[in-house]
Amino acid sequence: MPLEAPPAAPEHASLDDLVALARRVQSACLARGLTVATAESCTGGLLGHVLTEVAGSSAYFVGGIVSYSDAVKTGQLGVPVETLAHHGAVSAQVAVAMAAGVRERLATDLGLAVTGIAGPDGGTTEKPVGLTYVAVADRSHSRVERHLWSGTRDANKRASAAAVLELVLSGLAEDAAA
Amino acid sequence: MPLEAPPAAPEHASLDDLVALARRVQSACLARGLTVATAESCTGGLLGHVLTEVAGSSAYFVGGIVSYSDAVKTGQLGVPVETLAHHGAVSAQVAVAMAAGVRERLATDLGLAVTGIAGPDGGTTEKPVGLTYVAVADRSHSRVERHLWSGTRDANKRASAAAVLELVLSGLAEDAAA
Repeated sequence: MPLEAPPAAPEHASLDDLVALARRVQSACLARGLTVATAESCTGGLLGHVLTEVAGSSAYFVGGIVSYSDAVKTGQLGVPVETLAHHGAVSAQVAVAMAAGVRERLATDLGLAVTGIAGPDGGTTEKPVGLTYVAVADRSHSRVERHLWSGTRDANKRASAAAVLELVLSGLAEDAAA
Repeated sequence: MPLEAPPAAPEHASLDDLVALARRVQSACLARGLTVATAESCTGGLLGHVLTEVAGSSAYFVGGIVSYSDAVKTGQLGVPVETLAHHGAVSAQVAVAMAAGVRERLATDLGLAVTGIAGPDGGTTEKPVGLTYVAVADRSHSRVERHLWSGTRDANKRASAAAVLELVLSGLAEDAAA
């Protein structure tokens, strides 16, 4: 394998770093014939934006749902009302339900999801500003990661997008190695 | 009214310009008690991203649908298959159907839509790279604008997002003057 510069930590990802990650995701998905859909809460569309900064993204990126409100999470993504009520919108369970839901609704191979509290408001003692879950679902599995960012609203959004892109890439690398 | 610097032409809108426009949209919508949803094709999520760069956006921005593929335009936004077939995905008719569709599906007061060809590929003689339609729909009306950008893929996406934000603002100003 060619040597690559180590990726920037998600906390410090610039928009250019995100587009570089999106380029690697696009190459990996096209090589494997995989299509992708996104479900975004706190990132608000940033994830879809960076994926579509790369020319040719329409060959694998189908679209996404920005579920900023809980009503969109239940109505458009099929996140169960009970899951939201029991675990809250910012939880591993909701992240997984969003990833699986967008994958099913948009009929893609992979679903990518982000839910978190970008700040500066909206945090609680139990769920502070910066708490974020990112998830990736395929037909039979899902993976989810918890992060706690400490940047500005803008930096936290970029960190969240970087984290889910890195989670996709690590999953695809594991599949290739298996 | 306070004097304001004239807005940058959409073609030259930076991300900071877009966030400044988003801040004005947020103020205008909150003042009128209006909620907003977005339907994005060529911008891929950029519009939702800039709306949610402004703290407090969850008070009026409900979410959106990134309908990069035609299947998402019909399945998630209710754009009629015949409209797509007859006019093409990049058309005034589809822009209006996307704006009205997302407004209805996400149950908001306003629907904002963008469909275009960001480039560098995908253009034809009839529909060249840079051709973009932006639309805003409310309960009873819709407005649509045609633009032809001549920038890079990234600049064309920013120009399209700026154009739809300015279309919302001009519509709200007209309503206030009526």
